[in-house]
Amino acid sequence: MRDLGASSRMRSIGIGILGFGTVGAGVVEGLQRNARVIGERLGLMPAVLRIADLDLEADRGVAVEPDTITRDAEAVVRDENVRIVVELIGGTGAAKELVMLALELGKPVVTANKALLAEHGREIFELAERRGVDLYFGASVGGGIPVIRALREGLIGNRINSIHGILNGTCNYILTRMEAEGLEFEQVLGEAQAAGYAEADPALDIDGTDTAHKAVILASLAYGFSVPMSSVATEGIRGISRTDIRYAGDLGYRIKLLAVIKREDSRIEVRVHPTLVPLNTMLASVGGVYNAVMVEGDLVGKTLYYGRGAGRKPTASTVISDIAEVMKNLEGGSRRPLAALAQIGQPAGIMDIGEVVTRYYLRLSLLDRPGVLGRIADILGANGISIASVIQKDISQDDYVPVVIVTHRACEAELNTALGEIDALEIVGAPTVRFRIEE
Amino acid sequence: MRDLGASSRMRSIGIGILGFGTVGAGVVEGLQRNARVIGERLGLMPAVLRIADLDLEADRGVAVEPDTITRDAEAVVRDENVRIVVELIGGTGAAKELVMLALELGKPVVTANKALLAEHGREIFELAERRGVDLYFGASVGGGIPVIRALREGLIGNRINSIHGILNGTCNYILTRMEAEGLEFEQVLGEAQAAGYAEADPALDIDGTDTAHKAVILASLAYGFSVPMSSVATEGIRGISRTDIRYAGDLGYRIKLLAVIKREDSRIEVRVHPTLVPLNTMLASVGGVYNAVMVEGDLVGKTLYYGRGAGRKPTASTVISDIAEVMKNLEGGSRRPLAALAQIGQPAGIMDIGEVVTRYYLRLSLLDRPGVLGRIADILGANGISIASVIQKDISQDDYVPVVIVTHRACEAELNTALGEIDALEIVGAPTVRFRIEE
Repeated sequence: MRDLGASSRMRSIGIGILGFGTVGAGVVEGLQRNARVIGERLGLMPAVLRIADLDLEADRGVAVEPDTITRDAEAVVRDENVRIVVELIGGTGAAKELVMLALELGKPVVTANKALLAEHGREIFELAERRGVDLYFGASVGGGIPVIRALREGLIGNRINSIHGILNGTCNYILTRMEAEGLEFEQVLGEAQAAGYAEADPALDIDGTDTAHKAVILASLAYGFSVPMSSVATEGIRGISRTDIRYAGDLGYRIKLLAVIKREDSRIEVRVHPTLVPLNTMLASVGGVYNAVMVEGDLVGKTLYYGRGAGRKPTASTVISDIAEVMKNLEGGSRRPLAALAQIGQPAGIMDIGEVVTRYYLRLSLLDRPGVLGRIADILGANGISIASVIQKDISQDDYVPVVIVTHRACEAELNTALGEIDALEIVGAPTVRFRIEE
Repeated sequence: MRDLGASSRMRSIGIGILGFGTVGAGVVEGLQRNARVIGERLGLMPAVLRIADLDLEADRGVAVEPDTITRDAEAVVRDENVRIVVELIGGTGAAKELVMLALELGKPVVTANKALLAEHGREIFELAERRGVDLYFGASVGGGIPVIRALREGLIGNRINSIHGILNGTCNYILTRMEAEGLEFEQVLGEAQAAGYAEADPALDIDGTDTAHKAVILASLAYGFSVPMSSVATEGIRGISRTDIRYAGDLGYRIKLLAVIKREDSRIEVRVHPTLVPLNTMLASVGGVYNAVMVEGDLVGKTLYYGRGAGRKPTASTVISDIAEVMKNLEGGSRRPLAALAQIGQPAGIMDIGEVVTRYYLRLSLLDRPGVLGRIADILGANGISIASVIQKDISQDDYVPVVIVTHRACEAELNTALGEIDALEIVGAPTVRFRIEE
């Protein structure tokens, strides 16, 4: 064993941590456990000087000097020895005020707060830019996966053609179990809640909002402008049944909740919804709580980043790498411009979901009677939608049979018109189930 | 369209490129095509001032001022306006001299040269460290995949437990086609050569040397010391037959050429060989010419990086990101310490392949006679090797039948002893085929 002399003589940089919850404790524990590795790799030592949390008593499973912790978060931000502010409070209240204060004071900020950036990114990015201060947010998307770093740095030479992401571990866990065990959504959700894999109030996850937050951040990074949450068409996974999972499998697909970000001519589309992806693709292979992001660049082609999208230690891993990066920048007196504001002369408009053109999976409930499928095909055809394949199995349910249609590429608005007409027919027993397909 | 005023007023940094072949031309083309994106993301403009190549005439499909190109590589390195030297010559001759010269002159170097780093890494790293100069080599492993960046920066807070990599696109392409089409190795290799997917002299790829070069670089980065090529047990893919691919599939595995790097107590193992990986894993899903690297860190858990491991544009993507990084460092007057020399107090010893403990796939050729399997089991048992499963199908080949045995975890040296005894038996018709299994 070498002695610690080298490390202890290394220059250290003071860190203030706001929020001593799961991730905050993970960051402190990680910095303690791997201090020497980090110091030797970086040539600098991170020193956690102060930690703010409203709860001074809880046992976080990590030892810190008692006088390090305070309830006064603002004092931590203002402490002149704190040179980097790490915001791990979450939400858009106190977190926003403290992040803005730090940036105003000219202190670089590291945050894992996706809601804050998705909803107030523009204001925060602009302040960071105006004050010439670093803002790192690697853990806001993909937890432990260094995908933000890849977009900001590893793919800096690329124009981004598209991003497809499985960004919510709870949803992916539920879908994986539904398929593996042939269960319905509600049953898996209940068990996931009991086991702690899903929140007591799971709406933010299963309705797609969490994924949309992350999509907004990725789109901003890729295309250099602020994407409002309101422009992201978002559907969650409540409407997925085991029946659809089975049919999708028969057709050679698996259903995933995807964030889809694409450049189409001069505009981009940003959408979040259950999506059929071909079984033989990398994204289809992502099971359980894992996340993955497929990024296609004009030089690099397809790249994929995979790992744990949440959790104490994985998230801490990324927060620590952001802290390390800011330390290097501080040492050199430089900073990273925010690609999220780079306005790189790329498409600046956002497409309405009605303009999206893609293939669709449709599951109709039709009376088992001659000529019925012909009427459906006529309506689709009249709306410019052509059929790629049809599955009709010989199973009757209350006089209605399920018929699954896969379309060729069609425009969403036209599909909606067609489905409006179809679902009004007396031969249709239930609203048509519709999922988009990405190849 | 915004005007280019902002970009043209940006500070630029002079680049010299050594080697104007496939990758060199890709880098110049990428820098030209995406100059504005890069400049706005980085806040600095890369300016290719000089290019050295022995061939001044060839058409590289990219337009450069004629007087930019010279045959005098040393003059490019010494040019005082060239502040970053990009070495894309390859090999360990002129490339080494020029890299050493640049470092001696205090100029940061970007290289994609895996052979150079695998064989002379220690000398080069130490010179860079002594001169306090940046050395970036992202494209030396994984082509367009930013996995070196992930190891150096994104996972900086982690101790690395293991790395499993599919690092050679030619081998992966051959294995993918052998499986998909039920072909033998020689046939696919011939077709791959005809189609330009494999070199006329494919030895470096298919015998595993290229993968071993990359394994050495990854191991150095992960564990902070120089791993000699001679310590890497290396087997290529010539010995894989479609029979083994089929048996592996029956057992729930796919055969991949893997680089395996693992920490075991106080030492590491670094090995390259055909490996059975479970079908339901991400690595098993990597098909065709794609590469992927699974990195497991103590904080982050498992992460995977996937993309094109070679080719003009993907490699250029990574070289450009390295150039961008060095530019940022130069601007701030800072540099990145070389994690490959960080000597992070982690295990420093390298295990001999004989000490490796893993599971094995064995395909024996046995006389179809009662008691034969019992004798094999006895020999394995006497050497401390226990059997997990056996497949014996009812197919006779010249009186001998193939018998496939999967073992529990066993020590390589003991397995070798057992196989020595087994292959000497008169009931054995051909040397036993043996592959390692990674779960």
